[in-house]
Amino acid sequence: MQTLFLPIPAPDAGFYQRALDRQTQLTKPPGSLGMLEQLAVKLAALQRRDEPRLENIHISIFAADHGIAAEGVSAFPQAVTAEMVKNFAAGGAAVNVLARQVKAHFEVVDVGLLKPVDLLNVIRERAGAGTENFKIKPAMTEAQLAIALAAGRDAVARAVAAQADMFIGGEMGIANTCSASAMTAALLDAPVADITGAGTGLNDGQIRHKAAVIAQALQTHRQRLSTPLAVLQILGGFEIAALAAAYISAAQQSLPVLVDGFISSVAALVAGKINPDCQAWFFYGHRSEEKGHQRVLDALAAEPILQLGMRLGEASGAVMAVPVLQMACRLHNEMATFSQAHVSGGL
Amino acid sequence: MQTLFLPIPAPDAGFYQRALDRQTQLTKPPGSLGMLEQLAVKLAALQRRDEPRLENIHISIFAADHGIAAEGVSAFPQAVTAEMVKNFAAGGAAVNVLARQVKAHFEVVDVGLLKPVDLLNVIRERAGAGTENFKIKPAMTEAQLAIALAAGRDAVARAVAAQADMFIGGEMGIANTCSASAMTAALLDAPVADITGAGTGLNDGQIRHKAAVIAQALQTHRQRLSTPLAVLQILGGFEIAALAAAYISAAQQSLPVLVDGFISSVAALVAGKINPDCQAWFFYGHRSEEKGHQRVLDALAAEPILQLGMRLGEASGAVMAVPVLQMACRLHNEMATFSQAHVSGGL
Repeated sequence: MQTLFLPIPAPDAGFYQRALDRQTQLTKPPGSLGMLEQLAVKLAALQRRDEPRLENIHISIFAADHGIAAEGVSAFPQAVTAEMVKNFAAGGAAVNVLARQVKAHFEVVDVGLLKPVDLLNVIRERAGAGTENFKIKPAMTEAQLAIALAAGRDAVARAVAAQADMFIGGEMGIANTCSASAMTAALLDAPVADITGAGTGLNDGQIRHKAAVIAQALQTHRQRLSTPLAVLQILGGFEIAALAAAYISAAQQSLPVLVDGFISSVAALVAGKINPDCQAWFFYGHRSEEKGHQRVLDALAAEPILQLGMRLGEASGAVMAVPVLQMACRLHNEMATFSQAHVSGGL
Repeated sequence: MQTLFLPIPAPDAGFYQRALDRQTQLTKPPGSLGMLEQLAVKLAALQRRDEPRLENIHISIFAADHGIAAEGVSAFPQAVTAEMVKNFAAGGAAVNVLARQVKAHFEVVDVGLLKPVDLLNVIRERAGAGTENFKIKPAMTEAQLAIALAAGRDAVARAVAAQADMFIGGEMGIANTCSASAMTAALLDAPVADITGAGTGLNDGQIRHKAAVIAQALQTHRQRLSTPLAVLQILGGFEIAALAAAYISAAQQSLPVLVDGFISSVAALVAGKINPDCQAWFFYGHRSEEKGHQRVLDALAAEPILQLGMRLGEASGAVMAVPVLQMACRLHNEMATFSQAHVSGGL
């Protein structure tokens, strides 16, 4: 656990200022590229490069099962977690298609499926056979939490070894919006009804039931939810813990992170509560349709790149944003300056 | 002019329904890809393909000068129109960088610069040496309007000959937000102050002056602004006319269109007023920061793909949206179905 608290480097002020200056010299009215300018400047400061780049992208999907699924809080059966892991391994899921489009490295990690799948291209780093039902008892033990955190760190170690320009984490786990909403309520002291949504497609009555389950769990554990790590252990999932540790580890090693939707943002939130300096390293791919996401984004002061009404998870919204970031980099690096192009400046 | 009124085919209902059905079979909760699902289904219906695609993209930038620039309504000098045309021809502008990223065919058309530029890779189809100052007299004659409209049609003819999957039009013309705002006020009967914005970077006082110029022009011409073509001729620009004709011509030839920001959307608006069936063929790349854009998008019932705070024009916001559309196509075409992947459906 101690590695979570190791220091995180600050973005480079020199590269930041040079990138900002360059943006004012490019052949366009100042500010007219909007968020693309800010993205390029931020990436230059993080990567310590005058020409920020996003060519080599590492995507790790963490998959795990959730004991809370027994409470009937998902529109899909629990078997879908493992079935989708096989779909990831076979290349048929949304994130596979998107990863191919952006030529990213893609891997899937079993951090705690109910039963392991027998596939060579699924990395096994299992913290258990699914979490416990957190309505009744803590989702995981401290020892299990440590294994899940290590799985996140190990994924980032592979990304760093491959000299990735950006780390993208994703998740798969039936019932994990229930876990993420419970964590959000605990971390932000937010009303449960405000941050409990449809997940994979619950109706209004089912959402009320899900909120009631979360409220009861919060009541059960209220004495013990006093630290971010306790929230993660008691209400979290193995894949959420892996994501949080991955985000912190990436920031510690100067590897920028592109956060996906609701569940990933909750992992980013808990990561920021554990080691606040990591947040400077985060980009946010998209605003999800899942109800609690806006609240979490607000808490993170995050401005997502895309708003496409997506709510799929599995890193899909983050990977969608990769071309936008790539284009922001290329504009920054390749546009002519006013003096190069002999274009007059503003009046 | 008569070609503007030729019939436009409707999207194919059979391909639409098959694409909609396929979306429900893909391994994701129904609706969880949000707008990406709608984009793929719409493109399938327009392209009459079970596998919609966006590989071959044609970008035409229309450039022209504006007599209204004499009223001091732009933050940049009029010389910038021709200077930017040279920048386009040399590959140094934002849209060049973006066009390279998506491997699009790119061309720039002089439809009426003050003085023609002496460059082989600028297509010349000139309606005049800039428009007249529309505060005082109609921006163009009917004969000039006809030339500008033909320039738009000719660009689409080149795109069709090259078997393009999508047509993107862009514009360059110092002071053309002034023209577009005046057209919007006339076409939508909207208050001038509500649809007059900063353009390339006016301050508040300069925006008020620009609005006053527009209000006076509307007063001067109020008796004659009774048809969309009259609005185009009296308040428009050569590049806006070319865009409007290009959009209609593309729809007539079953070539989908990706509309850029404020000025392009005003061209789409006038195109829809001339021949309403063309609107079924339009996608909208982004929501611009330019003040009048939201009003125009509302009038078009348009849902733009991106909202990145851009306000550059020159097709840049449309080209930014190309990867999103490409990924929507690939997801539609390449994702595994529930039965292919042996994934359980919803409960």
